[in-house]
Amino acid sequence: MADIKENVIRAKSAALSLSAVSTRTKNKALTAMADALNEFRNLVIDANIKDMKAAETLKKKGELTDAMVKRLKADDDKIDGMIEGIRSVKKLKDPVGETMSSMILDDDLTLYQIRCPIGLIGVIFESRPDVVPQIMSLCLKSGNSVALKGGAEASRTNRALFDILSKAAYAEGIPKGSFCLMETREDVSEILKLDDQIDLLIPRGSNEFVKYIQSNTKIPVLGHSAGICHVYVDSDADIGTALNVSLDSKIQYPAVCNAVETLLVHKKIAKEFIPEMVKLFTDNNVEVRTDAATAKFVGKSGKTVKAKAEDWDTEYNDMIISIKTVNTLDDAIAFINEHSSKHTDTIITTNTKNAKKFANLVDSSSVMINASTRFSDGFRYGKGAEVGISTNKIHSRGPVGMEGLTIYKYILVGNGHVVKDYAGRDAKKYKHVQTDKDLEL
Amino acid sequence: MADIKENVIRAKSAALSLSAVSTRTKNKALTAMADALNEFRNLVIDANIKDMKAAETLKKKGELTDAMVKRLKADDDKIDGMIEGIRSVKKLKDPVGETMSSMILDDDLTLYQIRCPIGLIGVIFESRPDVVPQIMSLCLKSGNSVALKGGAEASRTNRALFDILSKAAYAEGIPKGSFCLMETREDVSEILKLDDQIDLLIPRGSNEFVKYIQSNTKIPVLGHSAGICHVYVDSDADIGTALNVSLDSKIQYPAVCNAVETLLVHKKIAKEFIPEMVKLFTDNNVEVRTDAATAKFVGKSGKTVKAKAEDWDTEYNDMIISIKTVNTLDDAIAFINEHSSKHTDTIITTNTKNAKKFANLVDSSSVMINASTRFSDGFRYGKGAEVGISTNKIHSRGPVGMEGLTIYKYILVGNGHVVKDYAGRDAKKYKHVQTDKDLEL
Repeated sequence: MADIKENVIRAKSAALSLSAVSTRTKNKALTAMADALNEFRNLVIDANIKDMKAAETLKKKGELTDAMVKRLKADDDKIDGMIEGIRSVKKLKDPVGETMSSMILDDDLTLYQIRCPIGLIGVIFESRPDVVPQIMSLCLKSGNSVALKGGAEASRTNRALFDILSKAAYAEGIPKGSFCLMETREDVSEILKLDDQIDLLIPRGSNEFVKYIQSNTKIPVLGHSAGICHVYVDSDADIGTALNVSLDSKIQYPAVCNAVETLLVHKKIAKEFIPEMVKLFTDNNVEVRTDAATAKFVGKSGKTVKAKAEDWDTEYNDMIISIKTVNTLDDAIAFINEHSSKHTDTIITTNTKNAKKFANLVDSSSVMINASTRFSDGFRYGKGAEVGISTNKIHSRGPVGMEGLTIYKYILVGNGHVVKDYAGRDAKKYKHVQTDKDLEL
Repeated sequence: MADIKENVIRAKSAALSLSAVSTRTKNKALTAMADALNEFRNLVIDANIKDMKAAETLKKKGELTDAMVKRLKADDDKIDGMIEGIRSVKKLKDPVGETMSSMILDDDLTLYQIRCPIGLIGVIFESRPDVVPQIMSLCLKSGNSVALKGGAEASRTNRALFDILSKAAYAEGIPKGSFCLMETREDVSEILKLDDQIDLLIPRGSNEFVKYIQSNTKIPVLGHSAGICHVYVDSDADIGTALNVSLDSKIQYPAVCNAVETLLVHKKIAKEFIPEMVKLFTDNNVEVRTDAATAKFVGKSGKTVKAKAEDWDTEYNDMIISIKTVNTLDDAIAFINEHSSKHTDTIITTNTKNAKKFANLVDSSSVMINASTRFSDGFRYGKGAEVGISTNKIHSRGPVGMEGLTIYKYILVGNGHVVKDYAGRDAKKYKHVQTDKDLEL
């Protein structure tokens, strides 16, 4: 623990200088990192072969699943992907130093709100060594130090990646200590206590893993622990749209958090919509679970299973969907606010008033109108990179791009101004005029 | 505890409807609240007389300080101030529903980032009953429910205020349960555990009180526990500006968090500046504490005291200042980053390069260039109202206006769009064109 804390304190301190490193230097460092990873890729592959061998042994003992072992793999293709990822971060706009707003308080007294890095970002992740280059490049570009903690099963691969990338960045003038890889023997729980040092924590892994992190630290956590998404087919829905969007939301990629798990159907449209929908799902190998009201409408359109109470709170991440018939739009909204994980929920309707009500009252980070839940993603939202999807109610919500790794400071530029002149009798008045002036020093 | 939790859950649930209440209804409710407080002011004054009487008894027993009893008072003047405060919140722009950004993802597929309330705000405060109308009106205008918990010594006054204001608001159509006053017999520590319900906590009280709250909850806290601010007089400072700004930063109102506590002076300007500065402070009844290097320059200009190590980490909130001579700008920046509470720090310089370096590298929520630290304030920053001053590194930083009580949701408006069309062979391409289109539903 002494080691960890020392390295983390060093990273926190490096963050102060890193915050002021120029875009040019950061971009040069990113290029150097990509080049170094290309040049020394064999070191990563060798380390990974050792990790994979150890993982196969653990798999035989039942301590690792097949999926975990697969995610661990870092071959030439994977490394090509990592290199491409670093180069694409280089292309992203540097958010640091952007004037977010400015206001003239009085003559020669102007207030600027300037985007700046947060400080030290902690990242705790399972398996997947590709998190190392991805997070190191995103944190570097946004001017943040980063403390990484990976899983034991990937320790050799993570270490090889980390050493290659940090050495390359430091050689280009990135402050030493800006990157910190926590050793695997140290307990995650010790890191969760470092709330004096780590400003923001990003967990990457299973829902249970994220939930554990969220429940066991005072450090702010950016993430989401579940993806229970809904599609609501309104009384005024276009049937073709409803079928198409519901199917896409379920089967386009069922294993991910923005896939739909529950379909709500207004009773007025149920008779027309449900048989077609169930047939479409069945034809596409989706298991359909229904409440009693829905079951009545199914007829011979497909084979369905009776939904249990727990189905409405289950993230299948699989080719399964549960369908419920609701009496009103209000019932649909109330049901979603109770059962949704506040990730992404969609309404299918041609009625603008209903769309508006749904968008206003559904308390989720993304609300879709006549569009697939699967659009809820940083790349699709045009953010260039995705730091994560957040269901938090403060700081960042929904798909988070690099702006989620930033905050702002106020810089007030005066000319000897004192508050005394704005108080008491004959007080000067503030002008408070918003401008679009950028800070130029 | 059953009561508390029930009321808090009710407030959380009311927040869902409150988030969609129109600006018109909220403004009508604010007018009704101000009018009701005016009409029923005697109920508040009567309750306050009882609180004050009990407080005097506690003061005699040494359980309350004189300052605490003074803050407790709610007479006609104070109530006039409260009424004026509510009316001024009515005049503020409703932040809810503002389109913060929009982007065309493809034809007929537009993403909107829409400002919305956070949900349920918890406010824990000591004495000062004026927090009740202030926070109730700010939360209402920003569409948030609020759970208030005041000190036992003000319980009758707080209850009277709360009952008058909530009744008036509910009569105008504000969802019942949106306001919740926690009873004084319940322990603050029980509230700090309600992280599943309360989205953001705002503590109001002494530094120790805020620090206690920050250290004992997983709910995000908006606030700051100390105000150790610095003025750094650079080698290239204008002496007149340095004297004037330093004096204003100290004496304009020394009891508050944005008053300066430590003055740093570059050694090159020390000989010329320090004697004048010490004389000015001494003439204005400010006690001056100095390090050894500074003491040498003081001469006969004034009487000074030797500063102890703890002086550099002390918030005097009083007519005392400590002065230290530094060798370089870098030393000043490093000293500030170590000792500042990251609230507000100022540089006095005519050298643009030095100003830029200071502004970039000082890790504080407000950085001033040739201006008094005392400007660091929500009203002076043009925010209309101040929710608090935050030294957090996420969500809100520096003086926080009503925007600190908001977050955003993404609303994606499509026309039956599915992700399948943007994947695989012949994939459609995203346009990702930023626009200034407002969401109109």
